[in-house]
Amino acid sequence: MKNIAVILAGCGVYDGSEINEAVLTLLHIAKNGAAYQCFAPDIEQLHTINHITGEEMPSNRNVLTEAARIARGDIKSLSELDVNEFDALIVPGGFGAAKNLCDFAINGTEAQINGLVLSACQSFADAQKAAGYMCIAPALIPFIYPKAALTIGNDEATAAALTSLGATHTACAVDDIVIDEDNKLVTTPAYMLAQSILDADAGIEKLVKNVLALT
Amino acid sequence: MKNIAVILAGCGVYDGSEINEAVLTLLHIAKNGAAYQCFAPDIEQLHTINHITGEEMPSNRNVLTEAARIARGDIKSLSELDVNEFDALIVPGGFGAAKNLCDFAINGTEAQINGLVLSACQSFADAQKAAGYMCIAPALIPFIYPKAALTIGNDEATAAALTSLGATHTACAVDDIVIDEDNKLVTTPAYMLAQSILDADAGIEKLVKNVLALT
Repeated sequence: MKNIAVILAGCGVYDGSEINEAVLTLLHIAKNGAAYQCFAPDIEQLHTINHITGEEMPSNRNVLTEAARIARGDIKSLSELDVNEFDALIVPGGFGAAKNLCDFAINGTEAQINGLVLSACQSFADAQKAAGYMCIAPALIPFIYPKAALTIGNDEATAAALTSLGATHTACAVDDIVIDEDNKLVTTPAYMLAQSILDADAGIEKLVKNVLALT
Repeated sequence: MKNIAVILAGCGVYDGSEINEAVLTLLHIAKNGAAYQCFAPDIEQLHTINHITGEEMPSNRNVLTEAARIARGDIKSLSELDVNEFDALIVPGGFGAAKNLCDFAINGTEAQINGLVLSACQSFADAQKAAGYMCIAPALIPFIYPKAALTIGNDEATAAALTSLGATHTACAVDDIVIDEDNKLVTTPAYMLAQSILDADAGIEKLVKNVLALT
């Protein structure tokens, strides 16, 4: 049975992993007969957002502890991720990918990536193992792959920022994917474009199938 | 287009709505061509649980604010639920259903149901509109329906408690449902029994289809 590492970034679209994307990722991994293990960095979130008002909440939260909600407690600290135990990596989106895993949401082209995240993701690239990044998570890719073909949908400013960091961006419909065969890398817009859970599901289903096909 | 009200109880299996169940519910509503609106009571959670350690966390959270994470912010306070706008009701499980919507997890057969939850759920029963309850959420049913056929899987103590409250319990496999035609009520064990997200998905898919068939 193929085994997929899933890196989460908290629990909720505005300060963590987008919950629908994360669950649909786990669903399609299982539907394709593979196993998964969730990971998250054991760090403070950039901030905690009230998902009704959009305002910052006074008491901040930990990325790993919150991500554990999506994983029903079955999650490991990202420092424990050993690439040798896995066939591929998938990173769902949500602002957490661009606030906690790196700081692209704040610093754009001046962004930095969390060291543990870089090390974990780089280990899959170095081992030439397949990886899938969805929604805004492809903002991590220029830190990991010197040259990569990817999509974040059709947002021109985001695409331009990733292009200036060395990536090659292709506009992509919400139910489609971009495959970089050389890097064994699959990306899909998910909630960068999705207007409904069905939109997100279509692209994520395709991403998971194609990541597994590259293993 | 049929419109389904979904009542959430927070965000996370141990103190709120079970996230996989909630997302799979929304997915299958959409796959069946229906629309949904999420609701949650604007009340404090019973408590907030660290989903890695199982320990209580010092700063408690609000049920509606946390449930908004699952709904991507598109959620209303339960006090705004007008049964006339909906064709059916679905309540996912997770301990939140038995800690926040009622206190069955604490008080068992002495449990009480939150007044707003009772009023909202009762309005669907009174209007003879269909309803689906999954996992431990059927613990709410004896407060709403004087006589009802339901399942919570095969946990004998829980089944006995619900029986003593007036319900008729039938053991049920994780990928199956129990239908109470008289009450237009559908129940499925979901994570009371599910060993995987595929298990949960199978029963929830069937529950949603059958709730919609009863509208």
